Parts: sequence; C-alpha cells; structure tokens
Amino acid sequence: MTYCLGIKTHFGLVMAADSLTNAGVDYVSKVQKLFDFSRPGERVILISNAGNLSMTQNVLTLVRRDIKNQAENDIYDLPTMFEVAQYLGKRVRDVADQNRNWMQQDKIDFSCSFLLGGQIKGEAPELYMIYSQGNFLRATKETPYLQIGEIKYGKPILDRTISYETQLDDAAKCALLSLDSTMKSNISVGPPINMVMYETDSLEIVHQVKFFDADPYLNKIRQSWEQSVKQAFQQLPSPDWQRVDTREQEDNWLSPSNIIPD
Amino acid sequence: MTYCLGIKTHFGLVMAADSLTNAGVDYVSKVQKLFDFSRPGERVILISNAGNLSMTQNVLTLVRRDIKNQAENDIYDLPTMFEVAQYLGKRVRDVADQNRNWMQQDKIDFSCSFLLGGQIKGEAPELYMIYSQGNFLRATKETPYLQIGEIKYGKPILDRTISYETQLDDAAKCALLSLDSTMKSNISVGPPINMVMYETDSLEIVHQVKFFDADPYLNKIRQSWEQSVKQAFQQLPSPDWQRVDTREQEDNWLSPSNIIPD
Repeated sequence: MTYCLGIKTHFGLVMAADSLTNAGVDYVSKVQKLFDFSRPGERVILISNAGNLSMTQNVLTLVRRDIKNQAENDIYDLPTMFEVAQYLGKRVRDVADQNRNWMQQDKIDFSCSFLLGGQIKGEAPELYMIYSQGNFLRATKETPYLQIGEIKYGKPILDRTISYETQLDDAAKCALLSLDSTMKSNISVGPPINMVMYETDSLEIVHQVKFFDADPYLNKIRQSWEQSVKQAFQQLPSPDWQRVDTREQEDNWLSPSNIIPD
Repeated sequence: MTYCLGIKTHFGLVMAADSLTNAGVDYVSKVQKLFDFSRPGERVILISNAGNLSMTQNVLTLVRRDIKNQAENDIYDLPTMFEVAQYLGKRVRDVADQNRNWMQQDKIDFSCSFLLGGQIKGEAPELYMIYSQGNFLRATKETPYLQIGEIKYGKPILDRTISYETQLDDAAKCALLSLDSTMKSNISVGPPINMVMYETDSLEIVHQVKFFDADPYLNKIRQSWEQSVKQAFQQLPSPDWQRVDTREQEDNWLSPSNIIPD
C-alpha cells in the first residue's frame, strides 16, 4: 500500500510519501515514491505515485526517457504545470493501453495515480492529481491538499488544520502526522518517508528530508502529539448525559420495545 | 453509510453510532442504529448495526420477535454474553439464508455487521463484533475497541488515546471525536448521534445521550478540539531539513537521474 499527499498553501507546497510496496502481505519491499524533476531557477516539478507499481514505474520510465531523448514536449519543454499534468496523464494512458487488457483478463488491479506539484517560472505553484484514466484535478484554495493511496486515516488531521493560509512549516508537520496516523493504522504504509517543502517563487528545492525507521524526530513528534492529544481531552467538557431510567422503556429513545413487530 | 464503535475499558463500556442511511447519494434517511435491550439489575445488552439496512432490520426484528414470543434461548435466557453473540450470529445467518441468493444474483451487497456490548450479572462486561457470516470476535485488553461501517477516518484518534485503562468519561469524549472526524470526512455519516456509557457492575444504563444536528455541545468540543490541535502543532519541533542543492543531482536522494534507463 501507499500513502502520498501534497499540500498547496499561499506560501508554497509540501509533498510527502511513504516507501512501502507490497504484493500480498507476504511480499513487502521498499521503493521510493517521491521524485524531484526540478531544473532550479526555471521550474520545480515533484511527482509522487500510488497504485500498481508496474504501471507507475513504467510511466516514470517513459517520462525519463522523453527527457533523455530530449523528446518534443518533455516535461522541461512544456510551458505550464497544466500541460505537464496533461502530459503525465497521456503517459498514464500510454502505459494503460499497453497493459490493460492483459491485466483485466486476470482481474489484476492496474489502477495507479500520481500527484504532481511544482511551479514553472512566471506561473503560480500548482498541485494536481492524475487518475488511472489520465484525467486529473487540481488543488484549490477551498481544498488545498490532495492525497493518493491509503487516504482515509490521514485525512481528519488535514481537515482540522490545513487551510490555504497555513504556514509551510505547519503544513509539513501536519503532513508528517497525517503519514504517522496512516502508518499506525495500516502496516502496509511505512518508512522511509520522503518529504519536500517548496517555497513559492524560490524555484528550487532546498528543504527536503528522509526519515528512516525509528527516526528520533518521528518518535519525538509522535510522543509530543500523543501527549498533546491526551491533554486536549482533559480540557474537553463532558457531555450532558441524560439520566434516563431504562426501566421506563416507553420514554427511552434507545428502547427497542416500541418497534417490536406484531 | 454508517459508523458505530464500541470501547471496552477496565471501567465499563462506551457505545456510539451515527444515524444516516443511504441507498446511493440521492436517497438518504435517518435511522437509529444503537439499541438498548437491557434488563436493569440483571443484564445490560446494547446492539448497534452497520451494512445493508434490510438485513440488519430483519435480524433485529427476529431478535425482538424471539423476546416477544418468549422463545427458548432469547437474549434474556442466555447465560453469557458469548452465547448472546452466538445467538446474534445465528440470527444473521438465518436472514442471510433467506436473502443471499436473491441479492447475489443482482450483485447487491448484502453484508452487515453488529457490535454487541454489555454485561450479564456474574460475568465481566464484554464487547463483540458479529460479521455478515455470523462469526464474531471480541474486544481484548490489547485492542479495547471495535468499529463497524466507515471505520478508517475515526481510527487514528482511538489508536492514539484509548487503552484498557482509559477512564470512561475520556473514552466517551474520544468516541465523539472519532465520530466527528468521520462525519467531517464522509457526509454519508451523520447525526443524530446516539451514545451510551456503561459502568462495570452497575447493570443498568444511566448515561445516555443523543446529539442532533448542530448540537451546541458537539460544536463546542469540535471547536475546542481544533484549537487544541492547532496549539499542539506550535509545540512540535520542526524537522531537521537537509539543505541539499538539487543542482548536484548525483548526491540527491530525490533525483530521478540515477535511474534514467539506457
């Protein structure tokens, strides 16, 4: 399984990804899922991937081959992030075309997805999510983050804390906690964790970090977080319990008696 | 969709459930999913349900009919919670037997699940989860909570805070936050929220509460929680960013250059 997320705020981008991949529970490996295709000073392009590894690796290989061959319209030629997203979607479709029928006839899940974040000089930073079908959507001010893979466990912390006005440092901490929540609940998501923080208009990546298993910083923020969460509980008011006598079944909303069928 | 959870600690039980049900996004209704079948002083039995509503309603109707008919081995006759769980599993199988083939041929999801919490005089409190197939498992000291329905959004808060030694009041607040996280991320889970807190050996339900939409208490704990979460962020140390010059692509772990294929 995989969990990758991207956050786009007024101040820039944060992208983070785990590194586990598995085919069944008895074949688990580590594989990098966040890649930097930047050309400092001119464009920053970050790509992360989730889903079928044979599909995502093929897509990224085609992207790299286009770069190597200086193909027309490789990701360094395209003038906008929108067109880079279109290009990536096209490459996803190319790989799907080659494999889909073979995989479908054996009911193998060929789905894959990508996050594409970055900035091209002259444009604002952008964050896109590209689907298995090659279509894509864009992070907005209202929903400034996008996730791929095992997305549910790590979503509540994002919903409660991230807005377009969030400082980048806070967004990065939130991304780590979102990954940490996911790793705690799903053992098929795990370290190393790769994370990049990009400041709007800097046009180069200077903040990146890789956390290995049992990283002291990860342990520290997990402990600090769990302590804060427990303290926060103490501050919450208790609910106003209704002290209903369950012996008076008729007045008790929980009672099943009034819907016993004839 | 549905989200129900049960927590069993040293001090008793907490059970909570939302009340939305839907067939597609264009047919959403409210339906109670947590029921109290207690006989105060003798046994406390709480049941919540998730999954196909026609299945869960049928199961509970059979349970109530057995009570009404004073059938042999209704839930008031059975001597242990283990046997109540077996009985409920048997009723799930009865309803599945009647409907499974008809539903399967049209690919309708007939799955359903139940949480069963309570205490019978002379026994310790128990918490069980009953599957669509009628088999069941039991909450333990190591994993003192069980969930059914849309379980992922609300799991991290449980994993970070609940242990077998958690006070009941804290477990109840945590259950509400777990529900609140789920409602925030999945609009097909929603109020009214029913919640019951049961103290070990009291053998009656005296703490129960029902929260309707826009309940002031729910708003208050949501606000208080989000404020605490934001404060907690401020206290987290920043990661130790590696200031890698991405222009030196060879030394950069993010670089895709070293795996560009020939």
